[in-house]
Amino acid sequence: MTVLFTDRLWKKVRPIWKAYVEHPFVRGIGEGWLEREKFKHFMKQDYVYLIEYSRVFALGSAKAHDLQTMTTFANLLHETLNFEMELHRQYAKKFNISPEELEATEPSATTIAYTSYMLNVSQKGGIENVIAAVLTCAWSYNYVGQALAQWRGALEHEFYGNWVQTYSSEAFTQLANDCKDLMNEVADGKPEHELATLEDIVVNTSRFEYMFWDMAENITMWPTDKVEGVQQN
Amino acid sequence: MTVLFTDRLWKKVRPIWKAYVEHPFVRGIGEGWLEREKFKHFMKQDYVYLIEYSRVFALGSAKAHDLQTMTTFANLLHETLNFEMELHRQYAKKFNISPEELEATEPSATTIAYTSYMLNVSQKGGIENVIAAVLTCAWSYNYVGQALAQWRGALEHEFYGNWVQTYSSEAFTQLANDCKDLMNEVADGKPEHELATLEDIVVNTSRFEYMFWDMAENITMWPTDKVEGVQQN
Amino acid sequence: MTVLFTDRLWKKVRPIWKAYVEHPFVRGIGEGWLEREKFKHFMKQDYVYLIEYSRVFALGSAKAHDLQTMTTFANLLHETLNFEMELHRQYAKKFNISPEELEATEPSATTIAYTSYMLNVSQKGGIENVIAAVLTCAWSYNYVGQALAQWRGALEHEFYGNWVQTYSSEAFTQLANDCKDLMNEVADGKPEHELATLEDIVVNTSRFEYMFWDMAENITMWPTDKVEGVQQN
Amino acid sequence: MTVLFTDRLWKKVRPIWKAYVEHPFVRGIGEGWLEREKFKHFMKQDYVYLIEYSRVFALGSAKAHDLQTMTTFANLLHETLNFEMELHRQYAKKFNISPEELEATEPSATTIAYTSYMLNVSQKGGIENVIAAVLTCAWSYNYVGQALAQWRGALEHEFYGNWVQTYSSEAFTQLANDCKDLMNEVADGKPEHELATLEDIVVNTSRFEYMFWDMAENITMWPTDKVEGVQQN
Repeated sequence: MTVLFTDRLWKKVRPIWKAYVEHPFVRGIGEGWLEREKFKHFMKQDYVYLIEYSRVFALGSAKAHDLQTMTTFANLLHETLNFEMELHRQYAKKFNISPEELEATEPSATTIAYTSYMLNVSQKGGIENVIAAVLTCAWSYNYVGQALAQWRGALEHEFYGNWVQTYSSEAFTQLANDCKDLMNEVADGKPEHELATLEDIVVNTSRFEYMFWDMAENITMWPTDKVEGVQQN
Repeated sequence: MTVLFTDRLWKKVRPIWKAYVEHPFVRGIGEGWLEREKFKHFMKQDYVYLIEYSRVFALGSAKAHDLQTMTTFANLLHETLNFEMELHRQYAKKFNISPEELEATEPSATTIAYTSYMLNVSQKGGIENVIAAVLTCAWSYNYVGQALAQWRGALEHEFYGNWVQTYSSEAFTQLANDCKDLMNEVADGKPEHELATLEDIVVNTSRFEYMFWDMAENITMWPTDKVEGVQQN
Repeated sequence: MTVLFTDRLWKKVRPIWKAYVEHPFVRGIGEGWLEREKFKHFMKQDYVYLIEYSRVFALGSAKAHDLQTMTTFANLLHETLNFEMELHRQYAKKFNISPEELEATEPSATTIAYTSYMLNVSQKGGIENVIAAVLTCAWSYNYVGQALAQWRGALEHEFYGNWVQTYSSEAFTQLANDCKDLMNEVADGKPEHELATLEDIVVNTSRFEYMFWDMAENITMWPTDKVEGVQQN
Repeated sequence: MTVLFTDRLWKKVRPIWKAYVEHPFVRGIGEGWLEREKFKHFMKQDYVYLIEYSRVFALGSAKAHDLQTMTTFANLLHETLNFEMELHRQYAKKFNISPEELEATEPSATTIAYTSYMLNVSQKGGIENVIAAVLTCAWSYNYVGQALAQWRGALEHEFYGNWVQTYSSEAFTQLANDCKDLMNEVADGKPEHELATLEDIVVNTSRFEYMFWDMAENITMWPTDKVEGVQQN
């Protein structure tokens, strides 16, 4: 029997994803003691991230081979821009971040790096690259959400419970599984050197995802902020 | 006062668009005597066209500078794939074209030419190219629809009335106007040589649109069909 | 033993390419009686075509997986823009077409259709699409050149001999073979549905190539020229 | 009189570029005491960087509006892949880095971030984005080279003199000036909001350039190397 491509990927990304759950930022969410300022930085960067992530969905619709996959990506794009982002705006209010402040967010170095990587590989290759590019975010957030959901009190936390609920929810689990199915479908029958290219994309996005947790934990923007005279927020 | 860019465009495309309304295929719709076989060919090619046209919307969402324009294109994409195409499938049944037959349609030379042109210029340039690429289809179909709507009996025709209603409708007029507004917005303040490039796109899509009417009228696929031994449909 | 992918392609495009050699325009070149005006139209459109074809080479360099393929495409691009186009300018003088007239050429409907198709599929997919897109022009011109080279007097004709020499030359045969090698390399091990997509690209470019001969023979630009009041050249 | 767009850019990037020259890695080159291991890491990452930077040149040729700009980018691409990279391979030997070791280099997080950013903005927009994306590297390396060339002994240093000579040379100064000219040409007459987008690109590449010096100084690859069990080189 053939091994699923996502099983092969899992072996490769497992040590990186395990490190997410042990990361102080993520532990701080799960155990509830994360400093509010760090989460605010995360929320704002995540908002900007989501806009660029939506562009990857758009490229998926532009590059899909069949009407069904086109529609899947069109629906993800529509859903994200019309509902997900509104949820983000609502949730942000709980942290006294106004919609205007969210909109005005400048992306950090890590946010630009991660989203540029996804967008570049998606434009360079065909639909298989798009699917590999979106996979890590969907699947690993579900992985983290489901892990934290088992921690005592994580789902009920006044500020962070909402976040844990979202990413461990049935709806989000379905989304992650849909992305995995798309990945396995498109990888099916491909020669090894092409699978290796797709694996690289999933590994690199996993590494950028780790850097995103780091960026949130350290409330970083750009290493040049001081020389540019930029106010730290 | 500055002249709207779409007013400049109108002067340029006017002779081409006027020729649409005098084209035997379009007159045949408006006066009701069009051969059913010709319209069936048109419907099938239009269905394939719409799929590729949707990809241009997707590129609009991928390339937009702001969240609002991203959302506009995402909504057009979603609407087209989830509702418009279903309307096409319903309407096609009236002509005894099954959804399966629609799906199985091979694109004609003209369909590929026109959609490849839109997709190529959209990828080559920025969002302004995408907007110029989608403009002709939306605006000129509305122009044709509104012209035919004034012809006696055109809106009530058993087979073609539906088509005239759709493209002369308030909803479709709104869509055309939205596209014109986007065009004027993005053209505002641009230097002449860039406006000339956008004008070229609108003129060329207008010429391809004319070729699309020709293709429908003559029920053509590829000039090589005979040497390839392809059955004419 | 595995069948080479280009052998599979050959079976598919053979009837179309055979029709090239029987086409009045090509026969006119080979037998030497082609009207000069038709060849002038061809040269000017071919010049514009070559500029867009070069862009496909550029995309090949942008999308290649390895340094060697990147360099192959970079060299093709460099060679075309710095030497091939100069040869075209020199040859055109024989027909009293000045470099300025060449530069000022507006592309015909068929030229835009064919080049837009190549550029769009190249941007939509990965490097395999780029290779499939450039293959037909290189390989089929060599096929036509070699066929005509065997016709009595074709290589020595005062005006058209140069053309037959170029495309039947050892250097051009090498170029065609290099393109075929790239195609076989990149197709190796791919699943059937991906091979079918590449086959479609080669078949469609072959059909557009036929339309290019037609365009030259009939000295056509756009079907809308009359309604636009464009002077026929 | 109109201010040149590059003068406007200079005001913006000046504090960042000044920080390059004060960066320990760059000072170490200019004063000659830089640890060889750090420079080796830099050379290897710079080699990988150059491959991706070449792809941006390729996109410039694919997206240029006129034959002259197409050719400029084609020549830069050809020159880089056929000569520059060979110079890198030669120079690397001085540091006991074999061509094989160079080829086998895995890109660091910063290398991928910087090159993905350039490639993404180049694909998202038109030729103006490509020109803005390549500008910082060419212009700022010339700025750094010329600054260090005035430091005592910098041009004659056994190991680093070669580097200072290259980037302060007349040929490289010409390249930087050519890029500036292209930038001013394409920016000419553009409305403010479009200039602001181009400015963002030049500022962000300047920030990534700083991160590249940091990466070299600290011999970093990915923050996840430890959890992945990757050997530090």
